[in-house]
Amino acid sequence: MILKGEIAVTQQLVLIAGTWRPATNPIGVFAATNPATKIPLADHYPVSSIEDVEAACEAGQEAAIALRSIPESSEKLAQFLEEYARGIETAADMLVELASRETGLPVTPRLRSVELPRTTNQLRQGAAAARDRSWCRATIDTQPNLRSCFAALGGPIVVFGPNNFPFAFNSVAGGDFVAAIAAGNPVIGKANTGHPGTTRMLAELALDAARSHGLPPALVQLIYRTPPDVGFRLVSHPSIAATGFTGSKTAGLQLKAAADRAGKPIYLEMSSVNPVFVLPAALEERSAAIAKELFDSCALGAGQFCTRPGITVIHGDAQGEAFVAAVAALFEQGKSGTLLAASGLAAISSALNVLRNHGAEIVTGGCPIDGDRYSFANTVLRVTGDAFLANPHALQTEAFGTVNTLVLADDLSQMSKIAARLDGSLTGCIYSDTTGKDDEAYTRLAAVLRQKVGRLLNDKMPTGVAVSAAMNHGGPYPATGHPGFTAVGLPASMMRFAALHCYDNVRPNRLPAELGNKNPTGTMWRLIDGEWSQRDILE
Amino acid sequence: MILKGEIAVTQQLVLIAGTWRPATNPIGVFAATNPATKIPLADHYPVSSIEDVEAACEAGQEAAIALRSIPESSEKLAQFLEEYARGIETAADMLVELASRETGLPVTPRLRSVELPRTTNQLRQGAAAARDRSWCRATIDTQPNLRSCFAALGGPIVVFGPNNFPFAFNSVAGGDFVAAIAAGNPVIGKANTGHPGTTRMLAELALDAARSHGLPPALVQLIYRTPPDVGFRLVSHPSIAATGFTGSKTAGLQLKAAADRAGKPIYLEMSSVNPVFVLPAALEERSAAIAKELFDSCALGAGQFCTRPGITVIHGDAQGEAFVAAVAALFEQGKSGTLLAASGLAAISSALNVLRNHGAEIVTGGCPIDGDRYSFANTVLRVTGDAFLANPHALQTEAFGTVNTLVLADDLSQMSKIAARLDGSLTGCIYSDTTGKDDEAYTRLAAVLRQKVGRLLNDKMPTGVAVSAAMNHGGPYPATGHPGFTAVGLPASMMRFAALHCYDNVRPNRLPAELGNKNPTGTMWRLIDGEWSQRDILE
Repeated sequence: MILKGEIAVTQQLVLIAGTWRPATNPIGVFAATNPATKIPLADHYPVSSIEDVEAACEAGQEAAIALRSIPESSEKLAQFLEEYARGIETAADMLVELASRETGLPVTPRLRSVELPRTTNQLRQGAAAARDRSWCRATIDTQPNLRSCFAALGGPIVVFGPNNFPFAFNSVAGGDFVAAIAAGNPVIGKANTGHPGTTRMLAELALDAARSHGLPPALVQLIYRTPPDVGFRLVSHPSIAATGFTGSKTAGLQLKAAADRAGKPIYLEMSSVNPVFVLPAALEERSAAIAKELFDSCALGAGQFCTRPGITVIHGDAQGEAFVAAVAALFEQGKSGTLLAASGLAAISSALNVLRNHGAEIVTGGCPIDGDRYSFANTVLRVTGDAFLANPHALQTEAFGTVNTLVLADDLSQMSKIAARLDGSLTGCIYSDTTGKDDEAYTRLAAVLRQKVGRLLNDKMPTGVAVSAAMNHGGPYPATGHPGFTAVGLPASMMRFAALHCYDNVRPNRLPAELGNKNPTGTMWRLIDGEWSQRDILE
Repeated sequence: MILKGEIAVTQQLVLIAGTWRPATNPIGVFAATNPATKIPLADHYPVSSIEDVEAACEAGQEAAIALRSIPESSEKLAQFLEEYARGIETAADMLVELASRETGLPVTPRLRSVELPRTTNQLRQGAAAARDRSWCRATIDTQPNLRSCFAALGGPIVVFGPNNFPFAFNSVAGGDFVAAIAAGNPVIGKANTGHPGTTRMLAELALDAARSHGLPPALVQLIYRTPPDVGFRLVSHPSIAATGFTGSKTAGLQLKAAADRAGKPIYLEMSSVNPVFVLPAALEERSAAIAKELFDSCALGAGQFCTRPGITVIHGDAQGEAFVAAVAALFEQGKSGTLLAASGLAAISSALNVLRNHGAEIVTGGCPIDGDRYSFANTVLRVTGDAFLANPHALQTEAFGTVNTLVLADDLSQMSKIAARLDGSLTGCIYSDTTGKDDEAYTRLAAVLRQKVGRLLNDKMPTGVAVSAAMNHGGPYPATGHPGFTAVGLPASMMRFAALHCYDNVRPNRLPAELGNKNPTGTMWRLIDGEWSQRDILE
């Protein structure tokens, strides 16, 4: 809710240049609503004007410069991340209570036992990566005396957090934040408007941790909301280095256009249909178990995960029909989750209209549920393979909730054709039987699906995203803006916020420690004359 | 020269889908001109319509699919690259003769002894990288059984080659070509219109090599020229995977806009001012030697190197004035090179006008040289630091020839301010004295300059670009389109043409060899549980 015009209510403060201060000439105010009660929350937050953005960009640029002149800054940033993690743990009760009020997500197990520990774990992995320094991929060719490594981008990183993870993807505490900081960059957080209070509380903890380690006060800044044109200015501002965005395709593509025009890198994690293919012998072998896995995956977080399966492709024979019935029964019997915002109801309805207008039929669900919380009936749709192939793009419209479209293909060959018409996705799964009957079909299908997704899974739903060096939470456009980067998994996610720096004939005492003859940590991995090693270079 | 309307001349053939064939409904024809004689060459080449582009994209997509199903394709591609290198060496006499006629570059030493060996060396380094496979950065976390690596992008790569390196950056033989092929992608070459015959001859050799190794016939395709709208379609075509472009900022930014709108990666290596800073004690110590190095670097290839120094910043005291005089004398006495095209004359004149209109004065040169070749007088300009800071952008206008602007700064502090106002460049150099008098100034200046350039040099001009794993031929926008990638140096340059592929719980027999428990080559480097190693994983 934005209130324009005269602003009588007390507004929460923005964090700019190390100071919590009123927004300068705000455009309006907004408040979050508890989706589990539909009751607006008391605090009002400013919609920032261009003035806050300009001030944050300038302070962020100064912070980036200051960071470069701090000795052992990667150790200090590691200590900062660790202290911040401890601060979050100390304040955990207050944080999860507020986050639950703002998002409707349950305190336990989700926020307290899963998401908050994941978040502090990410902060600590970021600290370890900053301290270890192997992430910078120091590459030394001794014969021409060329040395290169990745280094901080040289300006603040703007982070737009999504609504669905108030901690783990929070703009001032989540994955993009950790990656940007661990790579040595300040962050300008743009809070998700669904959980501004949680974000404010996190930023307070971050500021405390930054101060106690003598880091620049503008290491972490926070604004809550902007009109679109101010957001476009933010991602294209001459002082910013790059943007990390997680959210809707509509908003992401608009920001991308603005950033692209200015030559500013922007990393987008947008919508994704996350197709699941179940091969015939797998259905024959364990149909009920797969139906259960599918429902559980679709229902996690009320279906509001980036990696929730949106379509499931099966052979439309009698066995396929039985699977449809089994899935529909599970969706029908399962509890409907609470959506993150009222807008989610309209968005799902609108997406379902698109799907129905292109030949999908509703098997179960399809309507919002009246009551004192934002909820939408668990929904299963079905569509034939022919109909899908006639309108593949429309039938991949994302419905961000517990919604799954079952595509009933004529045969295996049509399943591969369907895979070939998929847009880029974060994930793609293939279930096959355990005795080898599906193997030939797997080979043909996987060759096609592999090109469409960042992470290919076997016999497993995609909703879990491990924080691993080998994770790829990324994929081809339009799942993201670049197929070579991941938003989850350290240290790989840091590469988005780093520039390649080469030193040619630079005198030894002027090289960064990572590129000196002596290994600065004794354990850092460096590529020396084509071999990865932890050794020093002999003089 | 484009001839529109009725086309009576015999046109050279385009290479599409493995067949040399006439362009389909060409928009016109053009011929190259020998810049050393101003005489148009006999052969006419078609300006391709959208039909050639559509056909090439379709065939390229099919080739990408075919490549994925070839067993041991990286070994086959390595053999292809090696055979292609041998083919180039066998045809070297004809190639350098034709390239010299088309570009005006001398057969010896430039083409025969420097650029052609560099090109075959790049092809062989690409072969080694494809065979070695370490480039794909296989990352395995055994505990969650997550495995990821980089892999071919899954569609053809469009390569636009520049006019200044008919071999080493050629669209069907140069650095981008090698990087794309070694990473497993087919290439659609868009010849530079300055040397279409050289490019055609190279493509013939490439096609022969591809055929003899059973690779898809559309592994290498070639068109020569398109109208702008057809070029925009090419880089944004649904079937293409990415584009590598080396050339002018004007063309590059237009192609970038088209590719960005379609979500297609495009890697640009555009213009660069390549600033050189000479600190006072260095001038005192070895002014004459530095002046000579500067002239030699600016004159290399008639000043038509991406890495040619465009501005030199010095302290404008008596010693600085003496340096200006020494540099001017060298430029005046030095032979003027032959430009690559008539358009180069107009482009330099136009750039000089911009520089002069913003306060730069011509010290020597400034005019085209009449005669039977395209030549422009070696040119030195001077401008005060104050004037530079008043119009930093205009005074970085690139004049692609033997042209250098000397910026006379008031003091060291102003030198740093000038560095802070530089646009992104491929390179930046600082000369300092050998006894430490410049060290303090170096530290302050380098901190600023480091952020502006991809490669920072000490006491060395930037024109040489070693093909090394530690090279960065890249830099911040607008020198390139992304600060994290290099266009020269294998295997790093391959990363532009690769996607990150994660395998989650994928059955062992379905993993690519690079991610299996057994190291597929015995020597490939993989990041296993956080340690780079060449070992197998124990079952």
